[in-house]
Amino acid sequence: MTARITGLRTYDIRFPTSRELDGSDAMNPDPDYSAAYVVIDTDHPDGHEGHGFAFTIGRGNDIQTTAIRALESYVVGRPLDGTLSDLGGVWREMVHDSQLRWLGPEKGVMHMAISAVVNALWDLRAKRAGKPLWKLLADSTPEELVDLVDFRYLSDALTPAEALEILRRAEPGRAEREAYLLERGYPGYTTTPGWLGYDDAKLARLCKEAVADGFTQLKLKVGANLADDVRRMGIARAAVGPDIRIAVDANQRWDVGQAITWVRELSRFDPWWVEEPTSPDDVLGHATIARAISPVKVATGEHVQNRVVFKQLLQTDAISYLQLDAARVAGVNENVAILLLAAKFGVPVCPHAGGVGLCELVQHLSMFDFLAVSGSMDNRVIEFVDHLHEHFVHPVVIRNGNYLAPTAPGFSSDLRPQTLIDYAYPHGPVWMEGEAA
Amino acid sequence: MTARITGLRTYDIRFPTSRELDGSDAMNPDPDYSAAYVVIDTDHPDGHEGHGFAFTIGRGNDIQTTAIRALESYVVGRPLDGTLSDLGGVWREMVHDSQLRWLGPEKGVMHMAISAVVNALWDLRAKRAGKPLWKLLADSTPEELVDLVDFRYLSDALTPAEALEILRRAEPGRAEREAYLLERGYPGYTTTPGWLGYDDAKLARLCKEAVADGFTQLKLKVGANLADDVRRMGIARAAVGPDIRIAVDANQRWDVGQAITWVRELSRFDPWWVEEPTSPDDVLGHATIARAISPVKVATGEHVQNRVVFKQLLQTDAISYLQLDAARVAGVNENVAILLLAAKFGVPVCPHAGGVGLCELVQHLSMFDFLAVSGSMDNRVIEFVDHLHEHFVHPVVIRNGNYLAPTAPGFSSDLRPQTLIDYAYPHGPVWMEGEAA
Repeated sequence: MTARITGLRTYDIRFPTSRELDGSDAMNPDPDYSAAYVVIDTDHPDGHEGHGFAFTIGRGNDIQTTAIRALESYVVGRPLDGTLSDLGGVWREMVHDSQLRWLGPEKGVMHMAISAVVNALWDLRAKRAGKPLWKLLADSTPEELVDLVDFRYLSDALTPAEALEILRRAEPGRAEREAYLLERGYPGYTTTPGWLGYDDAKLARLCKEAVADGFTQLKLKVGANLADDVRRMGIARAAVGPDIRIAVDANQRWDVGQAITWVRELSRFDPWWVEEPTSPDDVLGHATIARAISPVKVATGEHVQNRVVFKQLLQTDAISYLQLDAARVAGVNENVAILLLAAKFGVPVCPHAGGVGLCELVQHLSMFDFLAVSGSMDNRVIEFVDHLHEHFVHPVVIRNGNYLAPTAPGFSSDLRPQTLIDYAYPHGPVWMEGEAA
Repeated sequence: MTARITGLRTYDIRFPTSRELDGSDAMNPDPDYSAAYVVIDTDHPDGHEGHGFAFTIGRGNDIQTTAIRALESYVVGRPLDGTLSDLGGVWREMVHDSQLRWLGPEKGVMHMAISAVVNALWDLRAKRAGKPLWKLLADSTPEELVDLVDFRYLSDALTPAEALEILRRAEPGRAEREAYLLERGYPGYTTTPGWLGYDDAKLARLCKEAVADGFTQLKLKVGANLADDVRRMGIARAAVGPDIRIAVDANQRWDVGQAITWVRELSRFDPWWVEEPTSPDDVLGHATIARAISPVKVATGEHVQNRVVFKQLLQTDAISYLQLDAARVAGVNENVAILLLAAKFGVPVCPHAGGVGLCELVQHLSMFDFLAVSGSMDNRVIEFVDHLHEHFVHPVVIRNGNYLAPTAPGFSSDLRPQTLIDYAYPHGPVWMEGEAA
């Protein structure tokens, strides 16, 4: 009997984070961090499940869950081995479905839904291979990796031949880098101190704690009020001294001219980068800002919808740091494309994380990048936010400001079974109790 | 008693157009034209309803309908007059909802859902005012129109003051232009002859019929096979002679280099424009293509997600014709912004239509543009496809290749009640019979 994929379960999981103003920034004052969560079942006796999710911040998580449900027919009933060994093909079927693509194409709700399913399939494949995802990817041949990538719309910036060359160039020294990674981990930076909803005393305290915990970079949310930002940036700089990197994040709050004015005011505090200064769709705007605020650098990516927009951000020198997101573009495959693009243009990838489980996911991508794509950790850091990790079966492990390499097979994407019950929206106990209170 | 909005009904309506290969192109081989349809009810004794929809091409129309449903709380329960007199404010509430915007921001399923609801509110407002939408908009003051527009992310290209100036410049001569419009209509062009699924004889026959019907421009789908396209373009050119404009439409089929090669091959047939040569997200790609294929012009817009991308297409001289879509960006308000941007950059707007009811909607926007924004019909044409108009209560009227100005109050968006029953998916009679057969 050929083992098959037999089910696709979805869950609308929401955490009432708005009650504490965790995650508050200039554009997202009261998020309820949420996951449109998917579990893929098989009839194989090994019993492995594939777990994946799209991250949202509350309202609309039901729409996102519906969109994942709609992908059931693309996976359920398929032969297990044939599907997992051709995830490039499965990706192309879903992304290029001639009717579904009208809903994007390749952006927004539908693309994030594909991300959740693609990542769940990768989780399943890695579990069945008995490897953490970073290791599974790094053990693939350059040809296998290139086959995962859809080069449509990329060929003016990156061809399959160039991608192969990048991957082959990274082969020497891989064993040494893996040993280094396993021993030291991968550098992180923390956003925990800098949410807009926190008062000044809490900001100063959390900045000092971050440095004591071993972080060498932290990040502040800005963009709601310039005077407040100047004061908060001053507090943070005073708390950590001149040698700690402080990035600032405007969460798309500004128009182009406003961004330039604002960043110039903050530049006396030596910001390491300014993140999402304007609309994530505004490639030219980012490029204009980057030229105007130099030597301060621009970073963006958490809301960049797909590889085509990343391509242009790189072509225009608009960004100095590329912040991929594990679950906004269409999953592992598209992120392999994005890592290759970044390597081609020599731009360090510093993934967006936080939210629900994004730290758990992106660590695999950065570690794979270190082993098999860019081959470097220089100026590369993974965002860390100390939220909601306790809900994961294999939460990230941070030691002295570094992400330790995960060892459990899979993509670290499994939420605990009890969390799937407690935080189900709207009828799970946490939400029913909240309503009663 | 203050009248209120009392309900938001949604319908998943699909037409089995794939059975005839109507609407087939290089990227959409077998579309089932569909509408995620919404009706807004009130408790006012006048009994008017607001009708709107997002257009899709089949699978995923259920997701789109779910997204519209999720907007119920933004409209139901609101006071009727206060809501309709502040559609700028309602737009901003929905588009900038701090949690929902994570699903875009301002793109894809969620943005199209807002479009459907915004357009339904405009339909209701126009019906209650007893005017067709084009007239309602054209009778607004420049200040009222500017208030509809969200200038966020636009101010480096268009400020409120510039928008006011554009609108004031168009005030003189409006009465004369309205008389002209009512007498002559607004020029259309036809895509009916050129679908990829049609054989050569049908192509030639339909081209000749189009000219006999008074059209001076028609359009061919291209991009699947170069030899076929050369042959088909030759047939079309021979059928209509040198004076009829023939545009070609690649529906995003090409990479940048491919587009340039392909269009150069077709250029001997004097194509009027090349539409959607590559990804709608690739602003720089469009600009590169435009420079390389000059004097052939580039047109795009039906998949351009929002005003920020249109802004960049204009800033880079990537397009010579701007093809707005009535239901992809967030409805009338965002299209007013796009018309203003186009006027600022001096680029003619030639709307995308066809599908389900897009002709019915966009005619209002072009006629408003002629009266109150650009003040011109030069090189401006509205796409016309002879599909599915019979399902509308007030279908477009074409005479001698021109769209006649609609006179019925509203946005011409009402589907016939029987259509809402017959084409309901998946349990309406048309689909149940199709399954039985």
